[in-house]
Amino acid sequence: MNTNEKALALHEEWNGKITTEPKCHVRTREDLALAYTPGVAEPCKKIAKNKDDVYRYTIKSNTIAVVSDGSAVLGLGNIGPEAAMPVMEGKAVLFKEFGNVNAFPICLDTQDTEEIIETVIRIAPAFGGINLEDISAPRCFEIEARLKEALSIPVFHDDQHGTAIVVLAGIINALKIVGKKKENCNVVVNGDGSAGIAITKLLLLYGFKHVTICGINGILSKSSPDLNWMQKEMMEVTNLEQKTGLLSDAMKGADIFIGVSAPNIVSEEMVASMNQDAILFAMANPVPEIMPDVAKKAGARIVGTGRSDFPNQVNNVVAFPGIFKGALESRASQITDEMKLAAANAIANLVDEKDLNDENILPEAFDPRVADVVANAVKAYVR
Amino acid sequence: MNTNEKALALHEEWNGKITTEPKCHVRTREDLALAYTPGVAEPCKKIAKNKDDVYRYTIKSNTIAVVSDGSAVLGLGNIGPEAAMPVMEGKAVLFKEFGNVNAFPICLDTQDTEEIIETVIRIAPAFGGINLEDISAPRCFEIEARLKEALSIPVFHDDQHGTAIVVLAGIINALKIVGKKKENCNVVVNGDGSAGIAITKLLLLYGFKHVTICGINGILSKSSPDLNWMQKEMMEVTNLEQKTGLLSDAMKGADIFIGVSAPNIVSEEMVASMNQDAILFAMANPVPEIMPDVAKKAGARIVGTGRSDFPNQVNNVVAFPGIFKGALESRASQITDEMKLAAANAIANLVDEKDLNDENILPEAFDPRVADVVANAVKAYVR
Repeated sequence: MNTNEKALALHEEWNGKITTEPKCHVRTREDLALAYTPGVAEPCKKIAKNKDDVYRYTIKSNTIAVVSDGSAVLGLGNIGPEAAMPVMEGKAVLFKEFGNVNAFPICLDTQDTEEIIETVIRIAPAFGGINLEDISAPRCFEIEARLKEALSIPVFHDDQHGTAIVVLAGIINALKIVGKKKENCNVVVNGDGSAGIAITKLLLLYGFKHVTICGINGILSKSSPDLNWMQKEMMEVTNLEQKTGLLSDAMKGADIFIGVSAPNIVSEEMVASMNQDAILFAMANPVPEIMPDVAKKAGARIVGTGRSDFPNQVNNVVAFPGIFKGALESRASQITDEMKLAAANAIANLVDEKDLNDENILPEAFDPRVADVVANAVKAYVR
Repeated sequence: MNTNEKALALHEEWNGKITTEPKCHVRTREDLALAYTPGVAEPCKKIAKNKDDVYRYTIKSNTIAVVSDGSAVLGLGNIGPEAAMPVMEGKAVLFKEFGNVNAFPICLDTQDTEEIIETVIRIAPAFGGINLEDISAPRCFEIEARLKEALSIPVFHDDQHGTAIVVLAGIINALKIVGKKKENCNVVVNGDGSAGIAITKLLLLYGFKHVTICGINGILSKSSPDLNWMQKEMMEVTNLEQKTGLLSDAMKGADIFIGVSAPNIVSEEMVASMNQDAILFAMANPVPEIMPDVAKKAGARIVGTGRSDFPNQVNNVVAFPGIFKGALESRASQITDEMKLAAANAIANLVDEKDLNDENILPEAFDPRVADVVANAVKAYVR
């Protein structure tokens, strides 16, 4: 059996990848009186008197919801809430395995922005945080922003920020190797959806000055037709020279290429047209924008992909478990920009200078130090 | 420490009574590829093609939501969703411990009937069933009915039906002892909220003919002021003689008293005015409508309470875990009246005829046979 066949067979065997498990067993009448009636009335009364005690006595302290509407699932597109469940369960598994964070999948039977927002607000009392997942752009931007506004628990759209944090971590280390300054780098981000835009924002926040976003029709500029409101906003801070043209035009003289787009759309010629010591993150999955060996042969110095079978895997599993672990442990009410930058720096710093090389710019997904290091970086910025 | 103090200390120590646990551990790259990307795409694609496969590959097959708005929690009243959490977590624990059913608490930040209904519909894709809990009457009736209509997964308001099933089971056995026929019994149900009304409905369905409901102002009849729509409906099938008066009037000549009301409101005189071989279920918690020894001295033959420290505990933990276990295992789309009656009979039959006596009419909460017997009774009626 290949991986896909094996995965399908295992999913049938698992018949759901998570369970809910009691921390307290109920085997005697006394157990029942303590975990349920009449004893349970005591914490209820405490919380009724002081709502904040919900963190003291309930799962809210260490449990998040993994929320999706199934509108943009993996590379599969809009497959709906039921079909999104295996991904959200998988995400819940990763939160627990990597960050010791309890997570429960909530797949919503609506793709209406307003309905999603009001539903998440209504179910929030049980949760200490909301991880948004696989919601299509540009709705995801508004949903996240409005939920952050409405709720006092952290809301985090991992497709945006998890990816952006790990990309930035990789770029930080890649720049150390090639010895370039962020302010001087020309960056091309290929992909104008949630990941591409979040990556761009975080790079700008970090201090990059020259970022160009490309979409399916090439370079995005103020004159591009059919920009959504978020893309329009991005045109105020990217492509300041108002370049137009194709992806190949954007890549001429670029120092960094970041692809969150489609398989095989970067040619050897495009790579050859980049500046010396070019850095390429070709993260289309499972087939990257260009294969690493081809990119290297064409002149790239550092190549990362989303795949675990090539060097420099850009995997957001190094970010999201630690992010929520830190946020929950410190009762952060938001994941702020400072926290994202701190997390990226912390991830980058996990690669020792002596180990840092073209083929080793990011910590391994299974590096046991990662979640705590990221969590601590987040905690340092809790106000 | 007394039970209450101990319960509070334990709740702080537990800091949440349930966790989410992976069935599949992710310790290697291969694990990650199977439980998450790229392997997870396979079950997603299957479900996208055939929605029913969600039961094959996800937690929907064996996971329910315990949903409350915190409007009628235990004896505490309207304490809100956060303060209701310890109860809903406790319920989730009991589902797992007694029925091996995964359950997750969803406490809603709204008490609006329409908003509750639409929210539960929207979060339903992840769940195989909905257990409604501690929602005040008469809203609970409409919420349950509308959700049953809208969803193809079982929806069950335990405060109503769990209680009713166990009461009926106890009454079935009590009648065996006293040798009376259900058709001839005068039944007084004291309590006109969700439990009292559900008990009345199930007794009528089982074949009782003469039931009188009492509320806080005495006997309910068509001429009672301020009846809600459900109470009005009940007036078509109860108190057919249109009696009026106080609880004490209702109890004169009654064979069965069922109290889901308030402490100490039944006097010795009221019990003495009942027919011979009177059966009293005094289920107010923690202090019953009349203490068992007092009721017995006044002439009652069989007395049940909600408490574990007296004989004949009426505890719905013998019903709800098995109900959902059976419903999930058989993919029932509803919990039907036939299933409730079958469950009550099955619970009653767990007490062997040779063991049946005035002080032993119901199986123990911890009887290990209960959940499966109830589950099988439910399954027998899945269409």
